[in-house]
Amino acid sequence: MSDISRHHLNPPNRVLLGPGPSNVHPRVQGAMLAPLVGHLDPYFLTVMEDTMHLLRGLFQTKNELTFPISGTGSAGMEAGLCNFLEPGDVAVIGVNGFFGERMVDVAQRCGAEVVRVAAEWGRIVEPEAIEAALKAQRRVKLLALVHAETSTGVLQPLVEASQLAKQYEALFLVDTVTSLGGHEVAVDEWGIDICYSGSQKCLSCPPGLAPFTVNQRALAGLGARARKVQSLYLDLGLLSSYWPTGSFYHHTAPICMIYALHEALALAAEEGLEARFQRHLRHGSALRAGLEAMGLRLHAQEGYRLNTLTSVRIPPGVDDVRVRQRLLHEFGIEIGGGLGSLKGQIWRIGLMGYSSTQENVLLLLSALEKLLVAEGWSVEAGAGVTAAAQALREK
Amino acid sequence: MSDISRHHLNPPNRVLLGPGPSNVHPRVQGAMLAPLVGHLDPYFLTVMEDTMHLLRGLFQTKNELTFPISGTGSAGMEAGLCNFLEPGDVAVIGVNGFFGERMVDVAQRCGAEVVRVAAEWGRIVEPEAIEAALKAQRRVKLLALVHAETSTGVLQPLVEASQLAKQYEALFLVDTVTSLGGHEVAVDEWGIDICYSGSQKCLSCPPGLAPFTVNQRALAGLGARARKVQSLYLDLGLLSSYWPTGSFYHHTAPICMIYALHEALALAAEEGLEARFQRHLRHGSALRAGLEAMGLRLHAQEGYRLNTLTSVRIPPGVDDVRVRQRLLHEFGIEIGGGLGSLKGQIWRIGLMGYSSTQENVLLLLSALEKLLVAEGWSVEAGAGVTAAAQALREK
Repeated sequence: MSDISRHHLNPPNRVLLGPGPSNVHPRVQGAMLAPLVGHLDPYFLTVMEDTMHLLRGLFQTKNELTFPISGTGSAGMEAGLCNFLEPGDVAVIGVNGFFGERMVDVAQRCGAEVVRVAAEWGRIVEPEAIEAALKAQRRVKLLALVHAETSTGVLQPLVEASQLAKQYEALFLVDTVTSLGGHEVAVDEWGIDICYSGSQKCLSCPPGLAPFTVNQRALAGLGARARKVQSLYLDLGLLSSYWPTGSFYHHTAPICMIYALHEALALAAEEGLEARFQRHLRHGSALRAGLEAMGLRLHAQEGYRLNTLTSVRIPPGVDDVRVRQRLLHEFGIEIGGGLGSLKGQIWRIGLMGYSSTQENVLLLLSALEKLLVAEGWSVEAGAGVTAAAQALREK
Repeated sequence: MSDISRHHLNPPNRVLLGPGPSNVHPRVQGAMLAPLVGHLDPYFLTVMEDTMHLLRGLFQTKNELTFPISGTGSAGMEAGLCNFLEPGDVAVIGVNGFFGERMVDVAQRCGAEVVRVAAEWGRIVEPEAIEAALKAQRRVKLLALVHAETSTGVLQPLVEASQLAKQYEALFLVDTVTSLGGHEVAVDEWGIDICYSGSQKCLSCPPGLAPFTVNQRALAGLGARARKVQSLYLDLGLLSSYWPTGSFYHHTAPICMIYALHEALALAAEEGLEARFQRHLRHGSALRAGLEAMGLRLHAQEGYRLNTLTSVRIPPGVDDVRVRQRLLHEFGIEIGGGLGSLKGQIWRIGLMGYSSTQENVLLLLSALEKLLVAEGWSVEAGAGVTAAAQALREK
């Protein structure tokens, strides 16, 4: 710590394979070196406009109000809930992990009455349970689901839930923090009214921004609110006058971060969405094959596993913290532990954005094999890497 | 716009002499290139700890909870108000500009009853008026003032107001967005309970973070709240478990931005606070002397003028927008126009952080002279620059 005690930054190089952030593409880091201009500079207004344009492509939407919230994914969640919920409103929220729980907390802080649709941490929220919850209420203002539960590695199906939201005249809000840019998120086709994400996952931009989109149907309802939105910082009515024309001062946009996001979005557009999803699928599949070949059990429900984040059960007799610390200090690899009730039960391995490479899959499996053997877990030598290489060849 | 239409960033070089952001120091930009590590990485925890340590020096405080909020200055304002105000509370707020007005709006969105202590935009809020407002209420929860009104260029005295807050048992909250790092802000000595700032003004870091400090007296009161803080993202109870130990996950810190802030704080510590304040005083004084020598009138009340931001009346017959556009396009210089009722009435010229140099004072005065003459305003050739150079020699 002598470096930092002289106030000199000197961070180690890490291979970021946790639940986020992922490694930043060099072009994205380079973008932050572009000269800073004022937030009302005519040049910056073109950057804002182009950022919105590129974000619409990623969200697969025509929504005009598609922009980055000036905060992390949690600020995106709060913006998505506090603009549309006020005291007296009922929200139905799917809870099958940490971020579903957090949505409940945020919605309650908006004064809403929350109906929880719970599922085991590691399984999807079933459409039947969602419908039962919607049916039991006189009037539901909003249905909220987490598309990619970062705490469990589960990919939640959305299309049926969206139809139910329409049927019961509720707004449909979706958290895509760990899917946007890695799994398909088709906002318009799937009938999502409000959707937010985070910059530091599948976009491989540093953390600090929350891509956000909302349609006219949801925005039109803002006029009927009984009171002002409780957060001025996240008030979409005000933000929609700031983005993209800059005509109405609301706050000072985090200019360098928006440069970075713009570059990350340009990279995604260059790769192409379909190619990007295929890349995440290819490496996610190879990782899963490798882990299972080492005798490990995947945690998330079969058929609903994220390619961007894999949850795997820690085998009996293996020390969670010791393995993760050795991965970090001996190999420079970060993976995540479990959250909440899954602490000590699972590891969470991210393959997102720039971190989703076949080299990283093979590196992680090799390192993990060595450490598992040291922990006394019996692994056939090279089994993980062999299975992963096989899966990579097949795709 | 052909560059941006191919999604390539290529911002122009600007001399940022507006109300913020200021130009970023090269070392601060360089810090954003440091390798990204995870937000729970042991190395990052040392960066968080050191950032808190450096921020305490700048705020001149021993407050343990001294850290950057993950949002811009407006998020800092919201954090300062929403944690301490809830429905039924009374807040007395000084309003002598745009940001005082904004505090009223934010406090009302927290459900508080607001008593405004108004003053003309360009004058300080008088202690007598503050005392009268405090005296008229049965119980005041919080007194809030803007130290440096970015919309008017006024420096608000704080010591007497702080004593009044103590006398009437109210918390004392101060907005130091445009003063911290440029004017003295002595949180402990002045008895400020809650204080926030912005990264992009006198610290010359990009926008996106709000330095924040709060003392034990204020934090102790959080336990007596009738309900949860309405914002989870800005909940200081949760944030105090995240900073600095990272032991309790709250959100993903904006890591690159914190690298940048850390470097900006290291630069401030190297320069020394007293030297830094003197530098801002020297250049602010020279700018004022130069503007007055060109026959222009300063807008802010004499004796209470900011060194970091100078407001000057636009002389009769001179076109506000044309002059600012020519400054931008012919000289690459950004200055600000007036906000609200001062639109078209004043210009706002910032000399903050890395932008506060004698070269920038002389450049701005030369350019402005040329443009004022073109507008038909009579200026003795070289009068502004001569007066500024004289003032610089005397300091």
